[in-house]
Amino acid sequence: MAYNLLKGKKGIIFGALNDLSIAWKVAERAVEEGAEIILSNTAMSIRMGDLNALAEKLNCKVIACDASSVEDLENLFKESMEHFGGQIDFILHSIGMSVNVRKKRPYDDLNYEYMKKTLDVSAISFHKLLQTARKLDAIRDWGSVVALSYIAAQRTFYGYNEMADAKSMLESIARSFGYIYGRDKKIRINTISQSPTITTAGQGIKGFMDLLDFSERMSPLGNATAEDCANYCIVMFSDLTKKVTMQNLFNDGGFSNVGMSWRAMNVYSTSLDDMKHNMDKIVD
Amino acid sequence: MAYNLLKGKKGIIFGALNDLSIAWKVAERAVEEGAEIILSNTAMSIRMGDLNALAEKLNCKVIACDASSVEDLENLFKESMEHFGGQIDFILHSIGMSVNVRKKRPYDDLNYEYMKKTLDVSAISFHKLLQTARKLDAIRDWGSVVALSYIAAQRTFYGYNEMADAKSMLESIARSFGYIYGRDKKIRINTISQSPTITTAGQGIKGFMDLLDFSERMSPLGNATAEDCANYCIVMFSDLTKKVTMQNLFNDGGFSNVGMSWRAMNVYSTSLDDMKHNMDKIVD
Amino acid sequence: MAYNLLKGKKGIIFGALNDLSIAWKVAERAVEEGAEIILSNTAMSIRMGDLNALAEKLNCKVIACDASSVEDLENLFKESMEHFGGQIDFILHSIGMSVNVRKKRPYDDLNYEYMKKTLDVSAISFHKLLQTARKLDAIRDWGSVVALSYIAAQRTFYGYNEMADAKSMLESIARSFGYIYGRDKKIRINTISQSPTITTAGQGIKGFMDLLDFSERMSPLGNATAEDCANYCIVMFSDLTKKVTMQNLFNDGGFSNVGMSWRAMNVYSTSLDDMKHNMDKIVD
Amino acid sequence: MAYNLLKGKKGIIFGALNDLSIAWKVAERAVEEGAEIILSNTAMSIRMGDLNALAEKLNCKVIACDASSVEDLENLFKESMEHFGGQIDFILHSIGMSVNVRKKRPYDDLNYEYMKKTLDVSAISFHKLLQTARKLDAIRDWGSVVALSYIAAQRTFYGYNEMADAKSMLESIARSFGYIYGRDKKIRINTISQSPTITTAGQGIKGFMDLLDFSERMSPLGNATAEDCANYCIVMFSDLTKKVTMQNLFNDGGFSNVGMSWRAMNVYSTSLDDMKHNMDKIVD
Repeated sequence: MAYNLLKGKKGIIFGALNDLSIAWKVAERAVEEGAEIILSNTAMSIRMGDLNALAEKLNCKVIACDASSVEDLENLFKESMEHFGGQIDFILHSIGMSVNVRKKRPYDDLNYEYMKKTLDVSAISFHKLLQTARKLDAIRDWGSVVALSYIAAQRTFYGYNEMADAKSMLESIARSFGYIYGRDKKIRINTISQSPTITTAGQGIKGFMDLLDFSERMSPLGNATAEDCANYCIVMFSDLTKKVTMQNLFNDGGFSNVGMSWRAMNVYSTSLDDMKHNMDKIVD
Repeated sequence: MAYNLLKGKKGIIFGALNDLSIAWKVAERAVEEGAEIILSNTAMSIRMGDLNALAEKLNCKVIACDASSVEDLENLFKESMEHFGGQIDFILHSIGMSVNVRKKRPYDDLNYEYMKKTLDVSAISFHKLLQTARKLDAIRDWGSVVALSYIAAQRTFYGYNEMADAKSMLESIARSFGYIYGRDKKIRINTISQSPTITTAGQGIKGFMDLLDFSERMSPLGNATAEDCANYCIVMFSDLTKKVTMQNLFNDGGFSNVGMSWRAMNVYSTSLDDMKHNMDKIVD
Repeated sequence: MAYNLLKGKKGIIFGALNDLSIAWKVAERAVEEGAEIILSNTAMSIRMGDLNALAEKLNCKVIACDASSVEDLENLFKESMEHFGGQIDFILHSIGMSVNVRKKRPYDDLNYEYMKKTLDVSAISFHKLLQTARKLDAIRDWGSVVALSYIAAQRTFYGYNEMADAKSMLESIARSFGYIYGRDKKIRINTISQSPTITTAGQGIKGFMDLLDFSERMSPLGNATAEDCANYCIVMFSDLTKKVTMQNLFNDGGFSNVGMSWRAMNVYSTSLDDMKHNMDKIVD
Repeated sequence: MAYNLLKGKKGIIFGALNDLSIAWKVAERAVEEGAEIILSNTAMSIRMGDLNALAEKLNCKVIACDASSVEDLENLFKESMEHFGGQIDFILHSIGMSVNVRKKRPYDDLNYEYMKKTLDVSAISFHKLLQTARKLDAIRDWGSVVALSYIAAQRTFYGYNEMADAKSMLESIARSFGYIYGRDKKIRINTISQSPTITTAGQGIKGFMDLLDFSERMSPLGNATAEDCANYCIVMFSDLTKKVTMQNLFNDGGFSNVGMSWRAMNVYSTSLDDMKHNMDKIVD
C-alpha cells in the first residue's frame, strides 16, 4: 500500500545488489511512494548483481560509484543534480564489507591493511558521502540521510569481527555530521539498526542461520524483514520525522531491549537438559 | 498535508487539555490521516479545558476516564469498542503530573503520599491502561501504543523533580509490557521522548523558558514542536513501523546526542566573560 | 586479602539475610578493610535469618529498620550516629522484593496494591533512606552510597516481572538524588548492576538456574559472584572513586555488552539441531 | 595515601608526556601502590617531554614505542617480559591525537589521509597493542587493560571533530577484544571516560577553558582531575574489579547523567537576560 509520502522527492539509494538487498526494497518502496531515485553501487557490484534489472523495472538511472572515492562521489552528486534538475532530498547508505571476515581472519589475528579497507568502505565512505554532498550543496534543506547499522555497534556478537568497530564508527559519524549538517542546513542524519537479514552472503551459513533463529525467538515481534526496514526508511525520508536526527533507531522486533525471552530460553533449556541427562548417564 | 496513513484505523487519545497540548495535535493529525478517534481525559480536565470543542471540530466522541482507575479504564475500553464496532488500533498516553512539584516540595523534601499519587497518575496508569486493554482484548493484533516521555528519564534536569523517576518507570513499563503484548498479540509499545514543549503550565515561567532556549540552541534542528511530535506519533501508529517496539524514540532536534553546541556555548561564554570582566574590576 | 581501604570509615549495610546474601559479603569485606559497620534489616528478616550471628562474628551492632518507614530510618540514623560518635561514610542498599512475583501474578495480571508495596520496598525505600539521611545530615561530605540493581532495569527478562520497573526507578533515584546530594554535600550515589546471584530464594528453581547458565556462558569472565560484588562495593566506598557518581556500574563478567557469545550459541544450536533432526524424522 | 593495591604487579603505562598528563599521575600512583612499571611513548614524545625525569624519579625503565607500529609493540612486550621476568598484569592506553584538529580542518572539510592517521594513532593502536600482547601471551590471566576515552564518543561536542569517531571506535575495540580476551584468558578490558582535563595542549585555549567551566558547573562533584582518574585506574588494575569488563566507565563528577544543572543554568540565564535587556534597549 502506498501513501505518496515521498511525492516530488528525489533520492539516491546506495548498495542494492539483488532482490535480497535491503536497499533493493527501499528503492522499490521509495518509487511506490512517489519518489524519483537514482541507484548506485560499485561498477563491480553492478556487473555481478541485478541492479540494471531493478533500474529498468523502476524506470530510473544507475550511476556507478565507489563510495570510498571522493572523486566518484563528486561525479555522482553532480550527475544526480543535473539529472534531477536540482538538489537531492534523501540518501540511503547501505554499504558494508569486512575484508578480514572474507579472508577468515579472526578478530585477534586481523590484517591491518584489510581493516583499513573495511573501515574505508563501511564507515569512512559515509563521511565522504556527506562531506562531498555538503561541499556541492547537493542536499536540499530539511533533507534526510539514513545509513544502515547493526546492534553489534553496541554489543559483541561472536564472529561479527571488525564490522562491530566499523558500525560503531558509522553511528558516530551520523552524530558528528548530523550536528553540523543539522545546524547549518537542517538536514537530518540517522542510522537504522536492523535485525539480521538474510542476504545472498548469509544464506545457508549455519552460524548465521542459528543466530537468526535466536534473534527471532528473542524478539517479541520476530525479526524485522527487509520490507519492514524499507518502510522505516520511507518514514525517515518523509516530512513526518523532520526533527529526528543523530539517532540510532532499532528496527528489530524488540530484540535490543530483551535480555531473555521465554521462547529463546525454551530452546536453550532443552539443550541444557539433554546435556545434563547425558552427563548423568556417563556418571551412572 | 495528509497521506491517509491511518485510514480505517480507530484510536484513543488520552490527555488533551487545550490547543497547546501535544495530545490535541495528535488528535487533529490522526483525524486528518483518516482515523476515527475517541478523546479521553479526567472529568475535571474536560471541565477545565477545551476538549469538548475539539471533539465537536473533529466530530468525535469524548469519554471521561481517570486513567489511574481500572474501573474507569474498563468502562472506556468497553464503550470504545462498542462505539467503533470492534477493536482499537492505536492509543496515545499523554498523561503526567507531579504533586510534589505543584506543592513546591523539592526533591530532597518529598511528601511520599504525593509521590505515590505522581507515580500512579504518570506511570502506573500506563500499566493499568495496557493490562485492562489486554484483559478485554481491546487492541487489534499489530496495533500500536505510544506514551510521551522526556529525557529526564535518563539525565537529571534540576527542578524536574520526581517526574524523572516517574518517566523512568514509564519507559520501563513500555519495555516490560511491550515484550508480553508483542509476543502474544504482535502489539507494539513505544515511548516518544519529546523536546520541552510550551504548554499552559510552562508558559511564562522563567526557569522553563530559559531551559527551552538552552534546548533550542543545543539542538541542531531546534526543539521539536507539538506538531512535530504529532507527526511522529502518526508514523508510529501507521503500518510502516510494525517491527519497532520497546523503544524510547527521541524527537528532539538532536538534543539527546549533543554534549555541547557552538550556539549554546556562545551564550554561556558571554556570561562567563562578563563575570570575569566584573571580577577584574573588583580586583583592580 | 585486605588493603585497609576503609580504615576509619563507618558504614551501614542494609539487607543481609544469610551467608548467601550479597550484603553479608559486603559486611565481611568492609570489616576486613577496616570499617566499623552497623547491620540493618527488618525485624522479621532478623528473626528468620542469621544476621545476629554475623553481627557477633564481626563484632558489630544490629539495628532493626524497615527501610520503607521514615520513622524507622530516622531512628536508625540517629542511633547509628550516636553509636559511631559522628557521621556515616558509606551505605549499602540491598533491598528488593516483588509481592506479585511471590503471589505468582504475571506481569499482565498485576495486583496494584501489591505493586505499590513492591515499589515502596524496592525503590522508594532508597529515596526515603537518602532524604532522611540528608535531613539529619547523617552522611559525611564525600561519603558514598551504593544500591544494588539488575540489568532488567534496561532489558526485559521474562519472569522478572514488575521488579524491572522497580529497578528502573531505583536507578533513576540514584541519578536524581545523586545530583542534589553531590552538588550540596559532595556525596556520591551509584548503583551496581550485578550478575544474577544464587540466593536462598533462587536456589534450585529451574528457570533461575537455566538463566544463570545462560548468563554464565554469555559472559566472557563468567557471572560475578557475591564476593566479586562485595569487592566492587568496597572500591565504591573507598576514597579512590571520589568523582564517580550517578552511574549504573555493571559487575557482570561482560554480560551487558555481549549480544551473543560462542559458548552460549553452542548450547542453543545443539537444541536447534535436535529439533530439526526430530522434525526430519517426522517428515520422513 | 597508599594501600598496596598493586603489590607484586607489573604494568606498562603508555602516553605520559609531562606532569599534566593523566598517564603521568597513573604511573606515580601505580608505583605508590606497589607496582613495578615500564613507561612508554613515541621517541619524539620522549624527547619533547619529561618522561625520562619521571622514570628516574620512579626508578623505572622507559621503552620507546610507536603504538601504531606492530613491530614496535612486539619489541616493547618482549623487552618488558624480559625485564619483568614474566608476564604483565596491567596496561594503560592513554594515546590520542587528531591530525585534522592540529591542521585546523573542520569536520566538514576533513583530509582523509589525516583522518586515517588519527584513527591509526587513537583507536587502531589499541587493537594492535591487544593483538600483539595476545600473540606473545604477554598478559597474565586475570590481567587488566584500560584505555582513556571521552564522552564525545556518545554525544557531539562542537570542535572535538573526528576524535569523536576515533573514541567511538576505541570503545568498540574494548568491547570486541574484551569478549575474546576475557573468554580465552580472563583478561578484562575497559575504557574510562574522563572529564575534560587541562593538559599542555588545552591550557589557555578559550574554547577549551569555557567548556571546562561548563563541565565543572554541570557536574555535581565538579570535574574529575588527573589524580582522580589515576585513582580509578588503580582500582581497575587491582584484584577488586575482576569481573568488570567491556565497560565504559564515566569518571566525570556526574556530568554524563546531568541534562541541566542549576549552577550551569545560572550562568546561561545571566547571559540570556543581558541579551534580552540589550534587545529591549534597541527596541526602545
